[in-house]
Amino acid sequence: MKIAIVNGPNLNLLGTREPEVYGRTTLADIEKRLEEVAAELGVAIECFQSNHEGALIDRLQTLRGSIAAVVVNAGGLTHTSVALRDALAALAVPVYEVHITNIHAREAFRHRSLISDIARAVVCGMGPRGYEYALREAVLNAAGKK
Amino acid sequence: MKIAIVNGPNLNLLGTREPEVYGRTTLADIEKRLEEVAAELGVAIECFQSNHEGALIDRLQTLRGSIAAVVVNAGGLTHTSVALRDALAALAVPVYEVHITNIHAREAFRHRSLISDIARAVVCGMGPRGYEYALREAVLNAAGKK
Amino acid sequence: MKIAIVNGPNLNLLGTREPEVYGRTTLADIEKRLEEVAAELGVAIECFQSNHEGALIDRLQTLRGSIAAVVVNAGGLTHTSVALRDALAALAVPVYEVHITNIHAREAFRHRSLISDIARAVVCGMGPRGYEYALREAVLNAAGKK
Amino acid sequence: MKIAIVNGPNLNLLGTREPEVYGRTTLADIEKRLEEVAAELGVAIECFQSNHEGALIDRLQTLRGSIAAVVVNAGGLTHTSVALRDALAALAVPVYEVHITNIHAREAFRHRSLISDIARAVVCGMGPRGYEYALREAVLNAAGKK
Amino acid sequence: MKIAIVNGPNLNLLGTREPEVYGRTTLADIEKRLEEVAAELGVAIECFQSNHEGALIDRLQTLRGSIAAVVVNAGGLTHTSVALRDALAALAVPVYEVHITNIHAREAFRHRSLISDIARAVVCGMGPRGYEYALREAVLNAAGKK
Amino acid sequence: MKIAIVNGPNLNLLGTREPEVYGRTTLADIEKRLEEVAAELGVAIECFQSNHEGALIDRLQTLRGSIAAVVVNAGGLTHTSVALRDALAALAVPVYEVHITNIHAREAFRHRSLISDIARAVVCGMGPRGYEYALREAVLNAAGKK
Amino acid sequence: MKIAIVNGPNLNLLGTREPEVYGRTTLADIEKRLEEVAAELGVAIECFQSNHEGALIDRLQTLRGSIAAVVVNAGGLTHTSVALRDALAALAVPVYEVHITNIHAREAFRHRSLISDIARAVVCGMGPRGYEYALREAVLNAAGKK
Amino acid sequence: MKIAIVNGPNLNLLGTREPEVYGRTTLADIEKRLEEVAAELGVAIECFQSNHEGALIDRLQTLRGSIAAVVVNAGGLTHTSVALRDALAALAVPVYEVHITNIHAREAFRHRSLISDIARAVVCGMGPRGYEYALREAVLNAAGKK
Amino acid sequence: MKIAIVNGPNLNLLGTREPEVYGRTTLADIEKRLEEVAAELGVAIECFQSNHEGALIDRLQTLRGSIAAVVVNAGGLTHTSVALRDALAALAVPVYEVHITNIHAREAFRHRSLISDIARAVVCGMGPRGYEYALREAVLNAAGKK
Amino acid sequence: MKIAIVNGPNLNLLGTREPEVYGRTTLADIEKRLEEVAAELGVAIECFQSNHEGALIDRLQTLRGSIAAVVVNAGGLTHTSVALRDALAALAVPVYEVHITNIHAREAFRHRSLISDIARAVVCGMGPRGYEYALREAVLNAAGKK
Amino acid sequence: MKIAIVNGPNLNLLGTREPEVYGRTTLADIEKRLEEVAAELGVAIECFQSNHEGALIDRLQTLRGSIAAVVVNAGGLTHTSVALRDALAALAVPVYEVHITNIHAREAFRHRSLISDIARAVVCGMGPRGYEYALREAVLNAAGKK
Amino acid sequence: MKIAIVNGPNLNLLGTREPEVYGRTTLADIEKRLEEVAAELGVAIECFQSNHEGALIDRLQTLRGSIAAVVVNAGGLTHTSVALRDALAALAVPVYEVHITNIHAREAFRHRSLISDIARAVVCGMGPRGYEYALREAVLNAAGKK
Repeated sequence: MKIAIVNGPNLNLLGTREPEVYGRTTLADIEKRLEEVAAELGVAIECFQSNHEGALIDRLQTLRGSIAAVVVNAGGLTHTSVALRDALAALAVPVYEVHITNIHAREAFRHRSLISDIARAVVCGMGPRGYEYALREAVLNAAGKK
Repeated sequence: MKIAIVNGPNLNLLGTREPEVYGRTTLADIEKRLEEVAAELGVAIECFQSNHEGALIDRLQTLRGSIAAVVVNAGGLTHTSVALRDALAALAVPVYEVHITNIHAREAFRHRSLISDIARAVVCGMGPRGYEYALREAVLNAAGKK
Repeated sequence: MKIAIVNGPNLNLLGTREPEVYGRTTLADIEKRLEEVAAELGVAIECFQSNHEGALIDRLQTLRGSIAAVVVNAGGLTHTSVALRDALAALAVPVYEVHITNIHAREAFRHRSLISDIARAVVCGMGPRGYEYALREAVLNAAGKK
Repeated sequence: MKIAIVNGPNLNLLGTREPEVYGRTTLADIEKRLEEVAAELGVAIECFQSNHEGALIDRLQTLRGSIAAVVVNAGGLTHTSVALRDALAALAVPVYEVHITNIHAREAFRHRSLISDIARAVVCGMGPRGYEYALREAVLNAAGKK
Repeated sequence: MKIAIVNGPNLNLLGTREPEVYGRTTLADIEKRLEEVAAELGVAIECFQSNHEGALIDRLQTLRGSIAAVVVNAGGLTHTSVALRDALAALAVPVYEVHITNIHAREAFRHRSLISDIARAVVCGMGPRGYEYALREAVLNAAGKK
Repeated sequence: MKIAIVNGPNLNLLGTREPEVYGRTTLADIEKRLEEVAAELGVAIECFQSNHEGALIDRLQTLRGSIAAVVVNAGGLTHTSVALRDALAALAVPVYEVHITNIHAREAFRHRSLISDIARAVVCGMGPRGYEYALREAVLNAAGKK
Repeated sequence: MKIAIVNGPNLNLLGTREPEVYGRTTLADIEKRLEEVAAELGVAIECFQSNHEGALIDRLQTLRGSIAAVVVNAGGLTHTSVALRDALAALAVPVYEVHITNIHAREAFRHRSLISDIARAVVCGMGPRGYEYALREAVLNAAGKK
Repeated sequence: MKIAIVNGPNLNLLGTREPEVYGRTTLADIEKRLEEVAAELGVAIECFQSNHEGALIDRLQTLRGSIAAVVVNAGGLTHTSVALRDALAALAVPVYEVHITNIHAREAFRHRSLISDIARAVVCGMGPRGYEYALREAVLNAAGKK
Repeated sequence: MKIAIVNGPNLNLLGTREPEVYGRTTLADIEKRLEEVAAELGVAIECFQSNHEGALIDRLQTLRGSIAAVVVNAGGLTHTSVALRDALAALAVPVYEVHITNIHAREAFRHRSLISDIARAVVCGMGPRGYEYALREAVLNAAGKK
Repeated sequence: MKIAIVNGPNLNLLGTREPEVYGRTTLADIEKRLEEVAAELGVAIECFQSNHEGALIDRLQTLRGSIAAVVVNAGGLTHTSVALRDALAALAVPVYEVHITNIHAREAFRHRSLISDIARAVVCGMGPRGYEYALREAVLNAAGKK
Repeated sequence: MKIAIVNGPNLNLLGTREPEVYGRTTLADIEKRLEEVAAELGVAIECFQSNHEGALIDRLQTLRGSIAAVVVNAGGLTHTSVALRDALAALAVPVYEVHITNIHAREAFRHRSLISDIARAVVCGMGPRGYEYALREAVLNAAGKK
Repeated sequence: MKIAIVNGPNLNLLGTREPEVYGRTTLADIEKRLEEVAAELGVAIECFQSNHEGALIDRLQTLRGSIAAVVVNAGGLTHTSVALRDALAALAVPVYEVHITNIHAREAFRHRSLISDIARAVVCGMGPRGYEYALREAVLNAAGKK
């Protein structure tokens, strides 16, 4: 069982921007941690990040049929990209939406997600660990554990 | 360190309503599981549920000063109760909002939460395990682990 | 076959407030009349009123499985309580919504009911007799009479 | 005492369209039943249906001064016709609005009725019997029975 | 030069409804007065009223090319009929919109006219004389008097 | 009987701005014509114009008790001045609102008038003659002619 | 197989109004062309136009059970008639909505169609040929050609 | 003459929460001060607070007929409770709405009060003294002092 | 310590307009009473009223640095003047907003105040005494009495 | 004469996703069919698809001056991309907007197209044949056939 | 060539209010600097400021025909004055709108300018130098330099 | 000190599209002129343009830490790209937003900029010179000149 870990625009900046606020955890750190969790859970993960909406869609399309779930933090595209939403929906696997910060406590335009209503679950405000919870849940859920 | 686990209206029905949909996990099961997790994490939890907005507020007020965080699923009050929001905010501790289902995929009036913007984090759609993730995060966060 | 007759906040004031406008029919009068109709129809009814949202939900929960329908006038909670709506929906029996006055001819905030879209039927503006029509319809409908 | 029973566009299709859903009761059946109820109550009724807004208004105008109430199901015109509303209001008698289905549980554009705020009462979702309840109420109300 | 005087639904009731409010001027009185004014101004008028949107459109279409202006009080269709608006626009002559009462001081749904933005002028609240002012203006304007 | 003729900001520019569009009729021409009409009708008029909201209000206040009606074209203040509206309402005499152009065919912000709902009548799009119609109507109405 | 070709208000004016803009194709020309296409495709068509909402509904009702699809240009009723929408839906056959001009490039009130969401397909801005494309598609689709 | 002093959810926390911001005045202090003012004014007061909407309504109902005015700070229920509004309106005495902070300078959802439009007066932002001003005004007003 | 008492458009009419409704208290009476209160409190006041937005701003600017608070009833400008709001904010002293009537029970456009969110406190519906309460509060607050 | 056939994000998935719903027609099939139609019509076409907004814009820019029309299905970008709209508008040739499904019968956010108001025509819900109709229309229109 | 430099309410306070934030540049300083720039560019300028909407309009009207452009910072009137907008438009010369701060980063009611859509250009957030850029642009543009 | 000059989608078409409207200034011309200005001011600039949102973000990320300000014209992305906004904000340097035309005088969807509220300043409608003013301001501001 393979699970995709997808990050959108600007998430490659994690850890290098305002570390006193966001901490020093980089996206590489997060992906490394997720690899450990995946190993613990006995699943494979495939991680990628891009600032390009089109590149994210291209990559998601190549994964059709080979993954069991997607953990996705679409960054700013969360609120604006119908195309990315459609690409996620086309996968026909459970989507776990993650946001590092609590988007409900930020600007009004961040309150609407074009992904949430096609997602299985949403977690926001739990920082880098949000990815881990989503991955664990994706695996447990795929394993049929209620 | 003690953490409150608060459930609002109708959540006492969990497990007994449409089990083929919601599973057979009852609120008692959830609370028992959370006790185990709390023991594992070395913290205490205090669980309560009520269908009364006022009873929830009364109880939260008694906990002022003695808890480190709140994990709350306010049920239908999520979308309508400013009073409960104010009681949560008055605790001055991190609030973790949980919903068993993905409220963003349900009726429009469930998309607005009066609690989310004062919450530290929000998790929805992860079923009963959503409480566990929230509890773990509350403890790790309180322990200063980024 | 038992049918619940539920009245929400301030409906206990019926008959004692502005009788020249609302008439002198009290809630007790209405419930007595409904008992007569129930007897005529060969069904049992269970009547209760409360000013407490939580008490209404508590009571509805105790009736799960033992009633065939609910006739409900939720008073001011009609427009504001998602929790009561959820409790009614959880009964999984037909809901008949009653309002003594025509709520569409009153303030704008009374035009939206959080109950109507889960109700089988709605009757408003027919005064105390509105309950009777709802009860009769509930019984006929439950008896499969189209 | 005479009461008008008015049906608007497409209600002449009742009973012949999707009988497994709407039942086999035709508009003729409903009008026949209402004649029986009227006889029981000692009142006269005058029934008419048209798919033409203008024809409905023409007919209503001819009834000015000779009827004590109107029971009306305006069909799709409910949501769009100010002219029909004005014709109903010009009668200066109580208006009882009926809908066979629960319009609040259907498309959003059916939630607004241009008639409701000038109606004495509204009943929806009670199927063909909704007309009967409205007729009974119209007669009782006209007879001064509170 | 001929000018059409068009009245929509329910305006045939003028003078017979609530005369203490609207006065005793009937539509026939108004049309007679307009005939006098037309004679004074040396123009012909053609008056018609209908409660049928379609009949109004049919009649307007027959007048294409033979009239110099339209004075129209569309009654309730003012706020709801795109088809009538289109028929008026298709005449390609100046349209003078008249309302007997001040529609801006009535219900909110009467504040929007679908005709006003294609009209040359609008007069409301001047009672039956509003038609006369509109007719005079139509003639003066057609005569090129600024 | 005296009637006030009030013009707001920029109406002093009439006749000198884009005469090929608005004609060459100046505000002085209009006021002169209205004096003639007033003489014909046997009433007095008092005309004033100001670009200052405050000056208009000051002047209107001095006229309290001495005028029978107001004919007002408030220019741009029509859409923005609650204070002018209040001053007009305080006169407790009929208000006739005039606009030279058809404001409903212009920018959206000109579609809302803060004066219309307290006005007896509104006329727009009839050019300079709009004032004359309003004056005639004011006199006829004050004389009790329906 | 028979297909109805329905045209609403003002479409009978086609070809005679502003021919330099709309061309000289009349509704009769369109219907003649559609007859040719129908012959080519081996199907029958039944064409009708009315300026009366009610007449359109009456006619559609008579066609229930005898047609395989409807091609409809409802003119101004597109945006205002729930009754026509209901009559179309009651046919329970595919509906092809046609507009000669691109309604999305016109006034805002023309952007909302009450028919589109129950239509199989919508074509606008293709002039008279839009009907032909719709007819061809209706026949191909009914023949099961994807 | 007796006047009710009603406080809603969370107002029992006054003085113990963030004293550097809200000061150290407790609800008991406020009620004591109001007792002194009442004595000075020669009236009786009855004070109560609850976090329960239902309890507030129950209590208000018991006071019907025995009080001359209500001074109410409904806390979070101000913005959400139609039921409490109805209970206040049912008292048929002047209602004085008080808020300790200036709700217009806080979150948007606090700008709408369901009580304000049935209140005689509203005071907000004057801290604990707001209650005193309201009480004084209630007494002076009841005494007919303009 | 000096406090400005500012009144906007039409408030100079107080006491002379509909005295059976508003009472016979004039603005002069109010200002005289406030002088007495000021003397009692040991502070100076400076009162002015104008119907001119610009004059109010001019005067407020001259007071910069010499006053400790402003009590303001901006009349109709309350709802429309950003310029007056800016002038009040530029004073950098507490602003107490007063309205004689309860603006929340009046027209919808009076529910929005452009001043409230920069005010320290707001009082409405307390008639002429509203100014006195505001003045007292301004002095007590400036004196640091919580 | 050359016509561009442009497809946006996810349309490369056609035919491989849910074939029982969408059929087995791939984008390659569609392009092949369009080549045949183009040959029949004596025109050239240039087809391209991309999941990248920027790539679509780049390609469209290269075609400036060499194409006579564009047939475009922008997929999810239809509803979100002002940049693509601008690129289409910059071509200064007729734009034919195509959607395979009827977007008006889908989610609300798909009802608004940023392309429609600059398009010559729009066709939706006609499946793969929609492209063919658009291509035929583009050629006929360019050839001046009304 | 003369260019008007117009400043609205409260801009006369520049430099004396919160100098640590806004700097110590006064309006006189700005006007002096603009005089220098004007001299450099070989044009004349005429500067005026007023807190009175009416005075600004009066002054602008006197400049009709004698100026080539207007540089205007209308202060709070920017968002509320249709009358000032009309006066600017009546000048029929290019309007350059200036704001010292970035109004888009301030309160929501400052985001709408009634002047912007009739302006040639808008500059905000560039402090006092914004006037200079606008003046330079006005001169270059008037000189035909693209 | 280096300043980035960023141009978004379609701005590479400047000068080649409708030169009679936009002039013949190309983006290369603008960048050349900015180089001259930069040389005059003693700063370096780095110019880039892309039609790809992702490419713009990639490039901006590489500039983190090495630039003192950004001058950006995001073209159509201005109104739709949260991702680009986030990339600009992540630079933590002043952002100067430029638009060649006055976006406030264009379509409604261009009135909202997702960049403006994080920008230091905005200039629109000044044509190619808008970039120059922004660059000069960026340098002066960075140099601390108020």
